[in-house]
Amino acid sequence: MYDLVIKGGTVVTSTDSVKTDLAVKNGRISAIGDDLTSESVIDAREKLIMPGCIDSHTHMSLPVGINCSSDDFYTGTVAAACGGITSIIDFSVGDPARSIPEDIRLRMKEARDSVIDYSFHGEVLGWKLGHEEEFREAVEMGITSFKFYTSYAASGRRSDSGILYNAFKEIARLGAVAIVHAEDENLIESILSGMSEQDLGRMENLAVSRPDLCEGSAIDQVAFYAEQTGARLHIVHVSSALGVDRIGFAAERGVLVSGETCPQYLLLTRDVYKGSQGHFFSASPALRESVDQDVLWDALKYGLIGFVVTDHCPFTKQQKEWKGSFLNLPYGLPGVETMLSLLYSEGVEKGRLSINDLVRISSEHCARTFGLYPQKGSISIGADADLVIFDPKVKWVIRAGDLHMNTDFSPYEGREINGKVEHTLSRGEVIVKNGSFCGNAGRGHFIARKI
Amino acid sequence: MYDLVIKGGTVVTSTDSVKTDLAVKNGRISAIGDDLTSESVIDAREKLIMPGCIDSHTHMSLPVGINCSSDDFYTGTVAAACGGITSIIDFSVGDPARSIPEDIRLRMKEARDSVIDYSFHGEVLGWKLGHEEEFREAVEMGITSFKFYTSYAASGRRSDSGILYNAFKEIARLGAVAIVHAEDENLIESILSGMSEQDLGRMENLAVSRPDLCEGSAIDQVAFYAEQTGARLHIVHVSSALGVDRIGFAAERGVLVSGETCPQYLLLTRDVYKGSQGHFFSASPALRESVDQDVLWDALKYGLIGFVVTDHCPFTKQQKEWKGSFLNLPYGLPGVETMLSLLYSEGVEKGRLSINDLVRISSEHCARTFGLYPQKGSISIGADADLVIFDPKVKWVIRAGDLHMNTDFSPYEGREINGKVEHTLSRGEVIVKNGSFCGNAGRGHFIARKI
Amino acid sequence: MYDLVIKGGTVVTSTDSVKTDLAVKNGRISAIGDDLTSESVIDAREKLIMPGCIDSHTHMSLPVGINCSSDDFYTGTVAAACGGITSIIDFSVGDPARSIPEDIRLRMKEARDSVIDYSFHGEVLGWKLGHEEEFREAVEMGITSFKFYTSYAASGRRSDSGILYNAFKEIARLGAVAIVHAEDENLIESILSGMSEQDLGRMENLAVSRPDLCEGSAIDQVAFYAEQTGARLHIVHVSSALGVDRIGFAAERGVLVSGETCPQYLLLTRDVYKGSQGHFFSASPALRESVDQDVLWDALKYGLIGFVVTDHCPFTKQQKEWKGSFLNLPYGLPGVETMLSLLYSEGVEKGRLSINDLVRISSEHCARTFGLYPQKGSISIGADADLVIFDPKVKWVIRAGDLHMNTDFSPYEGREINGKVEHTLSRGEVIVKNGSFCGNAGRGHFIARKI
Amino acid sequence: MYDLVIKGGTVVTSTDSVKTDLAVKNGRISAIGDDLTSESVIDAREKLIMPGCIDSHTHMSLPVGINCSSDDFYTGTVAAACGGITSIIDFSVGDPARSIPEDIRLRMKEARDSVIDYSFHGEVLGWKLGHEEEFREAVEMGITSFKFYTSYAASGRRSDSGILYNAFKEIARLGAVAIVHAEDENLIESILSGMSEQDLGRMENLAVSRPDLCEGSAIDQVAFYAEQTGARLHIVHVSSALGVDRIGFAAERGVLVSGETCPQYLLLTRDVYKGSQGHFFSASPALRESVDQDVLWDALKYGLIGFVVTDHCPFTKQQKEWKGSFLNLPYGLPGVETMLSLLYSEGVEKGRLSINDLVRISSEHCARTFGLYPQKGSISIGADADLVIFDPKVKWVIRAGDLHMNTDFSPYEGREINGKVEHTLSRGEVIVKNGSFCGNAGRGHFIARKI
Repeated sequence: MYDLVIKGGTVVTSTDSVKTDLAVKNGRISAIGDDLTSESVIDAREKLIMPGCIDSHTHMSLPVGINCSSDDFYTGTVAAACGGITSIIDFSVGDPARSIPEDIRLRMKEARDSVIDYSFHGEVLGWKLGHEEEFREAVEMGITSFKFYTSYAASGRRSDSGILYNAFKEIARLGAVAIVHAEDENLIESILSGMSEQDLGRMENLAVSRPDLCEGSAIDQVAFYAEQTGARLHIVHVSSALGVDRIGFAAERGVLVSGETCPQYLLLTRDVYKGSQGHFFSASPALRESVDQDVLWDALKYGLIGFVVTDHCPFTKQQKEWKGSFLNLPYGLPGVETMLSLLYSEGVEKGRLSINDLVRISSEHCARTFGLYPQKGSISIGADADLVIFDPKVKWVIRAGDLHMNTDFSPYEGREINGKVEHTLSRGEVIVKNGSFCGNAGRGHFIARKI
Repeated sequence: MYDLVIKGGTVVTSTDSVKTDLAVKNGRISAIGDDLTSESVIDAREKLIMPGCIDSHTHMSLPVGINCSSDDFYTGTVAAACGGITSIIDFSVGDPARSIPEDIRLRMKEARDSVIDYSFHGEVLGWKLGHEEEFREAVEMGITSFKFYTSYAASGRRSDSGILYNAFKEIARLGAVAIVHAEDENLIESILSGMSEQDLGRMENLAVSRPDLCEGSAIDQVAFYAEQTGARLHIVHVSSALGVDRIGFAAERGVLVSGETCPQYLLLTRDVYKGSQGHFFSASPALRESVDQDVLWDALKYGLIGFVVTDHCPFTKQQKEWKGSFLNLPYGLPGVETMLSLLYSEGVEKGRLSINDLVRISSEHCARTFGLYPQKGSISIGADADLVIFDPKVKWVIRAGDLHMNTDFSPYEGREINGKVEHTLSRGEVIVKNGSFCGNAGRGHFIARKI
Repeated sequence: MYDLVIKGGTVVTSTDSVKTDLAVKNGRISAIGDDLTSESVIDAREKLIMPGCIDSHTHMSLPVGINCSSDDFYTGTVAAACGGITSIIDFSVGDPARSIPEDIRLRMKEARDSVIDYSFHGEVLGWKLGHEEEFREAVEMGITSFKFYTSYAASGRRSDSGILYNAFKEIARLGAVAIVHAEDENLIESILSGMSEQDLGRMENLAVSRPDLCEGSAIDQVAFYAEQTGARLHIVHVSSALGVDRIGFAAERGVLVSGETCPQYLLLTRDVYKGSQGHFFSASPALRESVDQDVLWDALKYGLIGFVVTDHCPFTKQQKEWKGSFLNLPYGLPGVETMLSLLYSEGVEKGRLSINDLVRISSEHCARTFGLYPQKGSISIGADADLVIFDPKVKWVIRAGDLHMNTDFSPYEGREINGKVEHTLSRGEVIVKNGSFCGNAGRGHFIARKI
Repeated sequence: MYDLVIKGGTVVTSTDSVKTDLAVKNGRISAIGDDLTSESVIDAREKLIMPGCIDSHTHMSLPVGINCSSDDFYTGTVAAACGGITSIIDFSVGDPARSIPEDIRLRMKEARDSVIDYSFHGEVLGWKLGHEEEFREAVEMGITSFKFYTSYAASGRRSDSGILYNAFKEIARLGAVAIVHAEDENLIESILSGMSEQDLGRMENLAVSRPDLCEGSAIDQVAFYAEQTGARLHIVHVSSALGVDRIGFAAERGVLVSGETCPQYLLLTRDVYKGSQGHFFSASPALRESVDQDVLWDALKYGLIGFVVTDHCPFTKQQKEWKGSFLNLPYGLPGVETMLSLLYSEGVEKGRLSINDLVRISSEHCARTFGLYPQKGSISIGADADLVIFDPKVKWVIRAGDLHMNTDFSPYEGREINGKVEHTLSRGEVIVKNGSFCGNAGRGHFIARKI
């Protein structure tokens, strides 16, 4: 009667943990309860059954200067599935010559090989006042969040105050979400202008050139516009205690603001830049200090930072070859395949998060923020059967060579981990079985999101 | 295979509303999902299935001066069940000659005829410094919340600062909850001392004699002690905007404070005291003004007031016979049978609350606050099958004569209502069927609560 | 032409320090400037000329149980003048059998021998609702501040909420000031009830029995009533960091609240109770810890505590004879003669205050708070020539035997001090010359204060 | 013996008003008091004697595009003296080709004809990281405040984040003050980009193009850098309620921030742009609405806005000839001659300020903020005898033709005024006598300011 029953696992939601069975039919969760039966059964005793993770921050096939991030939508989503992720929200790639809807349509084609469900944030690049209808059209296409940068003027990504204010005004009217990469580029440029060739030749100066101040300053700026327009604001990849503080100040004034962070900001510090492999860790925002980690974990626990994403943007070691200056590196780290295990091992096992918190920050809260809930991010009847069956007792060691991400580098190389994804289901289909991917290219669907 | 299946209803939790089936086995929720089958089926199409309400504020068989509240644990819980309430937390009746555990044991005997599950708050009356072990013992008995009064010195109920501070200190140590009836009695006495016989003879002066100031002042006082000791604090029957404000001020300072309100404060104003039936509305706190109602509804919506209870303490019209002064009246109103319908009709139907909010404020949040969750207040596998099947489309008129509460008076007499309880289940047993009680006296269990 | 010129001193006000001359005529400051001449000249080179201190908290001839404070208005004001104080505000002694104006008239007679100008706060003891005209009458007599106690129920001094609220309401209407001794007596009683005979026999338990919690709780209470009525509120003898915090919380909410502290809370800690002389230090509020001192000095510097007073209430060692329990002691310390030197030596010399701060906190701010400014507390043309000529270079040691206060005990016995009063002028008359009193009994005037 | 005595006037300071005499010797205030005598006497009965106003915001001989402000340092300071101003702080004119100290030296030469004392703020234009010593050198020259713009990129004035942060860091180290013209130019440009030729041709659109949002956004930005560096921050010409709010938010977080406003923001609204003379009112920030005026008056009263300046930057009607777009106008208004009378007439007479407030906001607070106190801004012995003798009873009408400012336009043309400057003294010399200037060109001194 059911297509599949997962038996005897502990079903975990953001509020409860219950040992019971879960049945799937027609790709949806059809029943939760004891003694469910089916011809097709997965034995999940001693395992956790959680909603599949939702990663709302990936960069597959992203052109970055002369490089392109090394995962395409196929390899990247295979790795994501193996890591327990069942939906991604990637980004359209803006072009001043195109409208936002055109960017999205183009990106949809690139994503066709995706093996899990996907959506996009609409990148705002070169948008002009008077073209408000682009946002409305995008929303009608199911794209309900828009990405702004306060840096990267060279690539045309930076939006100045006028754009921010006017775009936020329209976004507020539509009930959509403005998401912002918050770094004060003028300050970065000013610091860089004071650096010698020799300074640029030291990898650890990446962190010096993009300090937490940049994040704080930029958050203040965009929070002001959110405050004045009423737009919902989401700060991506918050990396610092100062960033958390500024989100807090804004929230106290009533700004509808949330934030996300990434495993790299929770688990790594700028110390990694010092070794001979330091340049492989190039990323923006830069890595911070251990005090920032503590504040980020706390903010996750208590909700000021709502969830964790990967900012997955992998490059191979060859792509990241050292050419004498940290300015010549492509920035970005791989992450989709390791996020869930890292959060479980470092978060839950170390007492920083409860298992229910884990579900909230890896799935549910993100789904709510971006209009996917309860189709995604929920274990409730009728929700998509996007599930991860996780074995908390497996001990393993992260090795780039063992992973599916299309890169020979992992920021966590050699780290001992507790807990691993056993099976992953997407709309009821087992696409990862005992850790091996067994789905088809292109089986993923585009998800039209709601306001 | 299941003992019972409720078919085709909309299962409502604080986060989701899903049209599906719900199965019960051995008194617990055994499965939620589509196409569940059983020999015993309830057709719930077009109906809402919600966790049974939890009323953490009732006064059955409460001696008040020469009177006794007119519902005993049998009649009161029958009425509660008919109103969709499946658990109550009543109060032990303190006596300086007894310890708190002794009070509780005595009260347990009085509650034996209860038809739904029940617990008690431990009333603190005559407790003395040095007797901290009474709290610990009570907690071991499953009584994890303790009731304090800042008024009613005449009956020995008033706790002064020394008692509050020292008891709160122990309560904080145990992780229990201090619950407080917050009215500044000195101020009340002062106002009364300025009233003539004639003033006392006008029912509307009840509100003048116990203004919102009293509530505000007393909340400030107890919040100070909660702040200094770290005790969790819960303010009962918050009646005024000023009360909400002071809870807010305390919360901003980090005090672990919550509040509850009652239908009478959400729906009635002091204007009711003016008519010839005004004296039947005697209650403490007194009824306020419409602006207070607005603030209370908002506070419920956004969480500063966590949930709604009844403060059920019924008297008959005869017991409330007018004897020339509002001081001669017993104070208290009936409420268990009408709470859910009133909240649905005035809250959900009028757009003040979502249906998910309704579940949160009538059941889940209370269960969490008082250590009943997830056994009670939750629709999840393994939870007690305490359920209400509610028909949102029934229109009816409140008439005391039609209700089961042991009183000939209803504060809402003649009010037109949308939505009514059809069936109520307690631990899987249908105890109200098509609006009629069909359970047995004494079937209710005492619930030992957790910290 | 001038009656007197003080030549070459540094004239210090709360904003400036200028080396110049100051001329007096008809008891008032007639000119400030260079090269002023008169037949009568005081050479003030190397000296500071400051407005005479105003001590708004003294208890001359105060009946305390079987004792009476050992300074009467003559001996006490002689000592005050020697210490640089030129005005005091003492208290009427309330009696339920008398009205407030009657109390004041009686106290006026007792103060007749005062050698410096004086006023009173009207003590509120036994006042009853409906007698609001007593406040108005007192204001018309020039008594514009009223003293409330939240403790001392035994002596009838304690005002409960009803009295506080209603009296504050009238005080707000009149524009007068409510001043409050803030200690939560219920808490004190509760702690005392837990103390054994042996506990009471240890002097250091005085501090245990009256902790800072009492101060914090009582400030919260009275601040609530000030907030609700709009009354100006002044907290006397703030002794603790917690007290300062609560004043700050109230101020942030817009309550018109100020505070004063005393040298003993700035300079002594509860450690003094431990020695064989510990009982001589009995006072209420009790002495605190060094962290409290730091917060009080900071609050003085930045204005949350507006000024310093003495709470002068001396007893002889014989009066303070140890009778086996700290409850049997009269509470109070001498202080009028040492305040200014202590504040200069410990405040200015140690860098905690500027010399301009010293004038502000020992004179000007008090005068402004209590309606004496600019007649008192100001060095401006036309102001009363109440001046102290202070030699900052004199080094001396405090010895009770050398002082004029009518007690053989000083809390600062043996302390080395920098800076001493050389001359004191009251309305232009030199009443202390080279440290010796040379005025007449009864020369002081009653000062009718303004709103 | 004294060079001059001013007899019988009311000497007004920020704290007191006393009817007495004031004597001058060697250019300084030598005595204040009754019955002072001199061969040279000014009868000041019925007059107010106040410290001369300090205008820390003037633009004499300022090149603005093809224009130059129409007052040079001679004509402008003559007019200022006639208006009761005795010191100005003008600005150096930055040039990327010069260092800040060089700018200052150049500007000093231009100011040589000034008839009153003067100083400069150092304009920061084209400053580069690594040139921190320019600030130190300027401070050594007595220039202790530095002007930044967040707008006017076209003229090179705009400082971006990197410059702001790094310059503020050095300013904080030196204890100097950063002063900022706060308008978010990106937002302005964005609005302008949406305006048609026709829109630009309507003068009232000046206000639309530079809304209060710009001010708020820019204050947030610079306040962040002041917060992070510890620099003292002063916002010039605050024009809006939103600007006041943001200063308040920053102050609550502990930022050392103050603000100034100008008579035009207190007294005019954008309605003036509508008439045929509207273009003569061109200024930046633009004029606002009446609600902004109310908030600014309140902020002045309670100190969030510390003082009033003129932003004097006059142009003739010919210079402001309408050329079809508000973008073609020079921006700036005349003001030095009318400020004091306007503040007296509209502020004191209308009950918005006390006469003591007037002294505070027109002189003392500015002197304290910018390191001139007590040499300037104070009536105390030894202070410069910079005084204004003001007749509060004269009624007059503002007419550009009657004034000394070198322009045929006054924003207040035809306004009826109470109170007028009778005489002005600069360092004891009467330079305005009965309203007529009688001093010499070049008599003004450069004032080296202190930290």
